[in-house]
Amino acid sequence: MFGSTFGNIIKISTWGESHGSGVGVVLDGCPAGLKLCEEDIQLYLNRRKPGQSPYTTSRKETDTVEILSGIFEGQTTGTPISLMVRNIDQRSKDYSQITDRYRPGHADFNYDAKYGFRDYRGGGRSSGRETIGRVAAGAVAAKLLKELNIELITYTLSIGPVTIDKKNFDLGEIKNNPLYMPDKAAAAKAMEYLETCMADHNSSGGMIECIVKHIPAGVGEPVFEKLDANLGKAIMSIGAVKAFEIGDGIKAASATGKENNDGYIRTKDGQIQKQTNHSGGITGGISDGCDILLRAAVKPTPSIAAAQQTVTQDRESVEINIKGRHDPVIVPRAVVVVESMVALTLADAVLASMTTRLDKIKNFFEF
Amino acid sequence: MFGSTFGNIIKISTWGESHGSGVGVVLDGCPAGLKLCEEDIQLYLNRRKPGQSPYTTSRKETDTVEILSGIFEGQTTGTPISLMVRNIDQRSKDYSQITDRYRPGHADFNYDAKYGFRDYRGGGRSSGRETIGRVAAGAVAAKLLKELNIELITYTLSIGPVTIDKKNFDLGEIKNNPLYMPDKAAAAKAMEYLETCMADHNSSGGMIECIVKHIPAGVGEPVFEKLDANLGKAIMSIGAVKAFEIGDGIKAASATGKENNDGYIRTKDGQIQKQTNHSGGITGGISDGCDILLRAAVKPTPSIAAAQQTVTQDRESVEINIKGRHDPVIVPRAVVVVESMVALTLADAVLASMTTRLDKIKNFFEF
Amino acid sequence: MFGSTFGNIIKISTWGESHGSGVGVVLDGCPAGLKLCEEDIQLYLNRRKPGQSPYTTSRKETDTVEILSGIFEGQTTGTPISLMVRNIDQRSKDYSQITDRYRPGHADFNYDAKYGFRDYRGGGRSSGRETIGRVAAGAVAAKLLKELNIELITYTLSIGPVTIDKKNFDLGEIKNNPLYMPDKAAAAKAMEYLETCMADHNSSGGMIECIVKHIPAGVGEPVFEKLDANLGKAIMSIGAVKAFEIGDGIKAASATGKENNDGYIRTKDGQIQKQTNHSGGITGGISDGCDILLRAAVKPTPSIAAAQQTVTQDRESVEINIKGRHDPVIVPRAVVVVESMVALTLADAVLASMTTRLDKIKNFFEF
Amino acid sequence: MFGSTFGNIIKISTWGESHGSGVGVVLDGCPAGLKLCEEDIQLYLNRRKPGQSPYTTSRKETDTVEILSGIFEGQTTGTPISLMVRNIDQRSKDYSQITDRYRPGHADFNYDAKYGFRDYRGGGRSSGRETIGRVAAGAVAAKLLKELNIELITYTLSIGPVTIDKKNFDLGEIKNNPLYMPDKAAAAKAMEYLETCMADHNSSGGMIECIVKHIPAGVGEPVFEKLDANLGKAIMSIGAVKAFEIGDGIKAASATGKENNDGYIRTKDGQIQKQTNHSGGITGGISDGCDILLRAAVKPTPSIAAAQQTVTQDRESVEINIKGRHDPVIVPRAVVVVESMVALTLADAVLASMTTRLDKIKNFFEF
Repeated sequence: MFGSTFGNIIKISTWGESHGSGVGVVLDGCPAGLKLCEEDIQLYLNRRKPGQSPYTTSRKETDTVEILSGIFEGQTTGTPISLMVRNIDQRSKDYSQITDRYRPGHADFNYDAKYGFRDYRGGGRSSGRETIGRVAAGAVAAKLLKELNIELITYTLSIGPVTIDKKNFDLGEIKNNPLYMPDKAAAAKAMEYLETCMADHNSSGGMIECIVKHIPAGVGEPVFEKLDANLGKAIMSIGAVKAFEIGDGIKAASATGKENNDGYIRTKDGQIQKQTNHSGGITGGISDGCDILLRAAVKPTPSIAAAQQTVTQDRESVEINIKGRHDPVIVPRAVVVVESMVALTLADAVLASMTTRLDKIKNFFEF
Repeated sequence: MFGSTFGNIIKISTWGESHGSGVGVVLDGCPAGLKLCEEDIQLYLNRRKPGQSPYTTSRKETDTVEILSGIFEGQTTGTPISLMVRNIDQRSKDYSQITDRYRPGHADFNYDAKYGFRDYRGGGRSSGRETIGRVAAGAVAAKLLKELNIELITYTLSIGPVTIDKKNFDLGEIKNNPLYMPDKAAAAKAMEYLETCMADHNSSGGMIECIVKHIPAGVGEPVFEKLDANLGKAIMSIGAVKAFEIGDGIKAASATGKENNDGYIRTKDGQIQKQTNHSGGITGGISDGCDILLRAAVKPTPSIAAAQQTVTQDRESVEINIKGRHDPVIVPRAVVVVESMVALTLADAVLASMTTRLDKIKNFFEF
Repeated sequence: MFGSTFGNIIKISTWGESHGSGVGVVLDGCPAGLKLCEEDIQLYLNRRKPGQSPYTTSRKETDTVEILSGIFEGQTTGTPISLMVRNIDQRSKDYSQITDRYRPGHADFNYDAKYGFRDYRGGGRSSGRETIGRVAAGAVAAKLLKELNIELITYTLSIGPVTIDKKNFDLGEIKNNPLYMPDKAAAAKAMEYLETCMADHNSSGGMIECIVKHIPAGVGEPVFEKLDANLGKAIMSIGAVKAFEIGDGIKAASATGKENNDGYIRTKDGQIQKQTNHSGGITGGISDGCDILLRAAVKPTPSIAAAQQTVTQDRESVEINIKGRHDPVIVPRAVVVVESMVALTLADAVLASMTTRLDKIKNFFEF
Repeated sequence: MFGSTFGNIIKISTWGESHGSGVGVVLDGCPAGLKLCEEDIQLYLNRRKPGQSPYTTSRKETDTVEILSGIFEGQTTGTPISLMVRNIDQRSKDYSQITDRYRPGHADFNYDAKYGFRDYRGGGRSSGRETIGRVAAGAVAAKLLKELNIELITYTLSIGPVTIDKKNFDLGEIKNNPLYMPDKAAAAKAMEYLETCMADHNSSGGMIECIVKHIPAGVGEPVFEKLDANLGKAIMSIGAVKAFEIGDGIKAASATGKENNDGYIRTKDGQIQKQTNHSGGITGGISDGCDILLRAAVKPTPSIAAAQQTVTQDRESVEINIKGRHDPVIVPRAVVVVESMVALTLADAVLASMTTRLDKIKNFFEF
């Protein structure tokens, strides 16, 4: 059964392994007439590229993207856009020690259980390198959304026990620190925490938050194709994510109706406005025009240098010491992956919403 | 764009509104040869039926299911199974007061924004009655899973601030109290809490947990069709759910790799076993044979008797006092909805996993 | 694996067997705001209803449709439209003689081979009654297309060896004869031919043709979702259809480029016009604004009263004499089935074409 | 809306234009454990490669395939297989004369009508080069089918007015002549005919036939996912195909039930056998174990050197003389395209049929 395709109207198919020839994506269904060049995509890829800080793997990859199809004279033609990044700095021998044993927290055992064998080099398809296809496609989706004035802001909310203070919230700060945190003080504390983790041959998890601005009301299809359901799937499909929240998220479970309901008021200029946004911009699976607010919980990097207990394929108990080049925390690099998945989901949902009303359809076809 | 269908190999299409003729589902793709009768489905429907306790709406619906197709001589034939429940106790006039105004926390505004108008009677398609189709189909999926020895256990984890104590965890207790909590003392406390809410014209949210036992290792398709991604979508598509967790969920974000990684050991009888199950039975989107553990955060019932601030369709500020018959908490009735969505997702994923390996395929076709 | 759903944006799920409770369809994705009542659908169903002429089965079914959901105050709401027709005149005992033996030309053997057993009453799901769901949904799609000025004209092109003479072609005649032929003289000859078939305990096949008028240029998605590919699938999915043609169809294979190419000219009012329409309105899978012209070849009714050679499930050679009530030709009743499948395919494709161009999308969202 | 993906369980996404960087395909869902190397695919690609005879374009392309992912140690891993062929011999300036005018029989006008502009170089995505992705993927599907003993035989049935004589039918001859005809005498006549066409600056159409051997009974899903419906879609999605037939095809329309029904007999070794195969191996959309027999009608190459009447984008009437390098007939090169689409459709359908019966599913999972 296929598993590497995503989307209904805009559909992507990603491919590639950590230590194969490269990784890539085919994005099908992009409307014609969007200006697009390699740099648009490269800017997104650079945000997940390794080697940006002491807190990322030292694998050296330029992650240079090549557009193979779908663009003519600087614009999308409506045909599939094929994007490829060649792998350069594979060091497969780093993985020779894990060919016969299962790394805790990784999917090695799971792939063997499913397929009978696995490409053990760098985790093969289960590697974080798989997300390059998502980010390359996400850059296209984000550019499309921008044409409709829809904006995405994504950042690190917490690293281990260090959470940003909403009072210090500063969007401009996001790109100032290597952790993509919108709070300078929290970023400094988080870096200290990561140093401790690294010294201890340990790793950290964290939370990522995404705000979507200017999404029109009426996007999302009731029942199973709810906008938050599709966002949930999109985010949960990212390797290390273990939880997804929309709006107040888990806190809603301990709230009362009086606390959680968002009342409406009439604004001075006669518009309808929500008094609060506990819902995170979506109710009944349909956007209401307020900011969409969502969060992803990312587990700690499973590759740690400390000795761990595991077994071999032949079911012998052994100790494992993972070498190779690993991130003590993947959250900062995963920020743009979250943003990409949100962009792809929204672009799809916004286009899907065009066929909702007969009066608008007739107007579109000029009847 | 369609939104009321779900699933890849087993596909369901639900239909129906709160105050229309009825609600139902067509389940397509069920394998032939499953023994199935109305009672199998009725048992599930009874778990979400209104009127079971003081904590549910007093709307009187027997929710009697009729099987319209797909069964011959007591067995599924492999053709679509059409299931219908007629609505009986519609009191649409209860809703006359909301025809022109938006209930806070409901999708009234969102439906109007999307479709230009709405069936305001009882929330129309956005009503909780929509879940009857899910539960009827879920009963079929659960019966199919049972044939493969896969078992689902679902219960209320918390109501408002009252959470079960894992030390008191007692599966047998789940059906003993109207809240479906596996902890007698917690259930008693939660009922007290609900009485307070009701006296205060208020409502409560809560958490639901589901354990899946005996799922084989190797189920789930990498990248976008990860088992936890599809479970996430399934659960987030339930009306009032605001967060989804797998395994340690949000706690994973503040954990370290040492804490969160599940090591492996060799058991006495030579099997591979995980030492812990922080992952909740799924890594890389693929099951590992351990219990799957997931949670849903359910927001408080938005219909509360207290006065609330809202606007009319014509954008006038008004107060709204919601009458009608409403649940002070929907969590207990949502337990079987969560279980149904998990069953549908797993049945689909288990069947999808049959085409994974050439050797097993050849064996199936006897080559 | 599911098989009873069709469509991308408008998705239908049909259900029901010849001798079960009834047959029906859930149509999901219909835009909101389409005026729709039972009569709209009934008019379509009446065109395929049995008992209209000596050339159809004498089974007595009123085929009365009930709308179960999706309509509020006379309009579609955008939610699933559930339509049901109860079976009335089942005479299952007519089929007792075929419980253990395979009718030639029917799918009895095939269903047993696939599912291990079958609902033998009237062919179960493989009965022509299955098409009621298609026609009920097709009526909705046709009404939607009419709002966009798209018109469908469908008729019998030939019965056995009797083909209409294009010189006598008369649209008004289609509803004047029970064979739905647009040529009075040909219809008379075809009826004579059918009388001969019936006297000989034999049956006849025929061809159906469909013309689509006013389809806008630009509908259909290149490569695999070509408009003619989807029309081909739609038509080939009708039980007895053995061939599909678009435009010149099979004749194109023996033509030359000079004969087959459609040149363009500038009309007096400055428009682009094709000089001929050998292509049948579609090239490269995309409509060009000319009439779409397609044909379906329908095999003769397999149920014939003459003795035939067959085997039992236990693999014994036996003779079979099919009793029951059967059409000597199904072509006239299949005319509206072809029209319905074309309508569903086009409605889907027209809506899909709305997301093709960024400039039009921006205009839609008012940027 | 996407259009370049195909398949349910095995899903392909093709990409690329005639004069872009290259063309390719991502095949997702291939079972793990299939031995696969570049040569397996190259053998298929070579059958559609240009320059094989005087009857094909003189464009020089080696069509060398590169496997970019999905293979490890010579076997498929179950992850997406990305295949790419770089374009080498683009001569885009040959197309400078058509930038502003529509070639008759081509999709130039249609692409402009749909997308607002087009990549005019060699037809862009509507070029026959698009089929490279299909053939590369088809080679994988065919290899998978071979593991299940399913064999495909495809050949040219007719070129213009020259049809093979079934009495001379000789499978061994197919690869002996550049037209892939299984009849030496017919091939000679067809070549003569083509010489006449070329001398006359004209082109020819033709028919392609495909036989599938050893397909198990029970493949294909009733109603809309009928095996012949999906084969019909697959074949009609090939650029120049204007008709599709299964079994007796169009002839069935003029036959009687007595002639067309396939009776059953018991063979000497106690098996069930059809006496004839008018159905072409499929009834009710489900295979019966007999050979599947299908045909495609291919229109004449639209690019002809003779002067033709057309218009410019600005709606001026002009004459067009198509230069460039074109096939006087594309049928021989399309033979392997038909075979590839059949292979992809069957591989998908065969895998889908694994989830049909509960007893077999339980056996698969060892219950």
